[in-house]
Amino acid sequence: MQTKGLSLNLATVRQQWNLIEAVEACARHGITAIDPWRDQVAAVGLAEAARVIKDNGMRVSGYCRGGAFPAPDVAGRQAIIDDNKRAIDEAAALGAQCLVLVVGGLPKGSRDMPTARGQVTDGIAAILPHARACHMPLAIEPLHPMYAADRACVNTLSQALDLCEHLGDDVGVAIDTYHVWWDPDLAAQIARAGAAKRILGFHICDWLVPTRDILLDRGMMGDGVIDFRAVGAMIDKAGYRGLIEVEIFSAADWWKRPGDEVLRTVIERFNSVA
Amino acid sequence: MQTKGLSLNLATVRQQWNLIEAVEACARHGITAIDPWRDQVAAVGLAEAARVIKDNGMRVSGYCRGGAFPAPDVAGRQAIIDDNKRAIDEAAALGAQCLVLVVGGLPKGSRDMPTARGQVTDGIAAILPHARACHMPLAIEPLHPMYAADRACVNTLSQALDLCEHLGDDVGVAIDTYHVWWDPDLAAQIARAGAAKRILGFHICDWLVPTRDILLDRGMMGDGVIDFRAVGAMIDKAGYRGLIEVEIFSAADWWKRPGDEVLRTVIERFNSVA
Repeated sequence: MQTKGLSLNLATVRQQWNLIEAVEACARHGITAIDPWRDQVAAVGLAEAARVIKDNGMRVSGYCRGGAFPAPDVAGRQAIIDDNKRAIDEAAALGAQCLVLVVGGLPKGSRDMPTARGQVTDGIAAILPHARACHMPLAIEPLHPMYAADRACVNTLSQALDLCEHLGDDVGVAIDTYHVWWDPDLAAQIARAGAAKRILGFHICDWLVPTRDILLDRGMMGDGVIDFRAVGAMIDKAGYRGLIEVEIFSAADWWKRPGDEVLRTVIERFNSVA
Repeated sequence: MQTKGLSLNLATVRQQWNLIEAVEACARHGITAIDPWRDQVAAVGLAEAARVIKDNGMRVSGYCRGGAFPAPDVAGRQAIIDDNKRAIDEAAALGAQCLVLVVGGLPKGSRDMPTARGQVTDGIAAILPHARACHMPLAIEPLHPMYAADRACVNTLSQALDLCEHLGDDVGVAIDTYHVWWDPDLAAQIARAGAAKRILGFHICDWLVPTRDILLDRGMMGDGVIDFRAVGAMIDKAGYRGLIEVEIFSAADWWKRPGDEVLRTVIERFNSVA
């Protein structure tokens, strides 16, 4: 079983371990890269998180997450921008390869999607100078359309790439199979992302049938319907040679299993689909 | 309260009434158009369904539904084509304005989306001559991407319109706000559909936050986040002057209320958003 190229998004074991335990478990299983979440870092402290990551020789494929830009008023949006700048600082302190952006949905009480999308564009533009100063690329993650209202109003790779082109350099995309697998335009848009050197991350996770929960019922690779070889071939053809990150939110299944069993399974399935 | 232009998709009251009861209730409330489902027609018999619809002066904005084309083998696909031809005959017997197609997802055990999509194209092409002979337009309904695996692998209006162009005349789209509201390309694709005279149906139903069930938690207009005035303006600008169909699957809420309360609410909300 090889683990070369594999990164573990630490949300996958968030119910089992804190960041320190998760990093040590990864090291034990031969996994040499991670993507931690802000709350996981905050729980142990940024300095301690950075130390344990460094001491264990972990690469950090990304940092989850910035974003959530839309808000009902200017003060709210400014507070979010300030918080995103802190997220950039944390990502830099951890040596992350990018800050993943889940851009946010409709502001509370609003049905105005064009305005929400405009606020996302403005929000990313507002943090981009700080990201550049910190040499921290911003990875816009298009989320599945079922999260358009409450999590991210960037819902296709095409839309994310249009946004990147509007914003300029140092912005790219994180492509998660769970969010994009259904897209009839997927091959063309992955090729477009590759040609523009915009692929900053590639996340894998399966789509289960049936899906019992709209947020927390994501599948281990092989348990669902996604053709990972097909998507992987598109990503490979697009020239991406970076880490492949496994990210699974699974309240009823994987979050309830022992962490070591989860990691063993992640490695097995990574080998069978990658 | 006006009911002009309103059609009730009978799935909205499927737990309360059979087809005859539902038609009589619509007449009582001043609703003059319906869209019945095949199982509802079968339950009372086609001839009796046609009689009660005619006797109550109901228009039939569509008939739900054909489709489900992908299957693992040729015999399976042929059986589906034959069944779709019967659906066309039934739609004609009921005087429906179109047969709504929910095209189907991946065949059981398959992860091959391009093949499934090819089977959909082939399936529609196979029934189209019979549809033309019966003067029954086929309305492809793009379904929300969260149904790509198990219900319909046509998931955007753009994809549906590409398919229409490939197939030729007498094929169009049914546009349901629930399925398409999130699409960043919605305005452009509705305009495209209108310019090509491809809009055969317009269905409305709201997106609830949170959505508690991936299939049966659709919302009454006004209870969710969809901007019906904005989408309605796109549809209007595209030249569509047909019926507006209310279609709500709601296991935990509207299906549990008295049918007359549901119809009163449908009419109220139709007036407030249309």
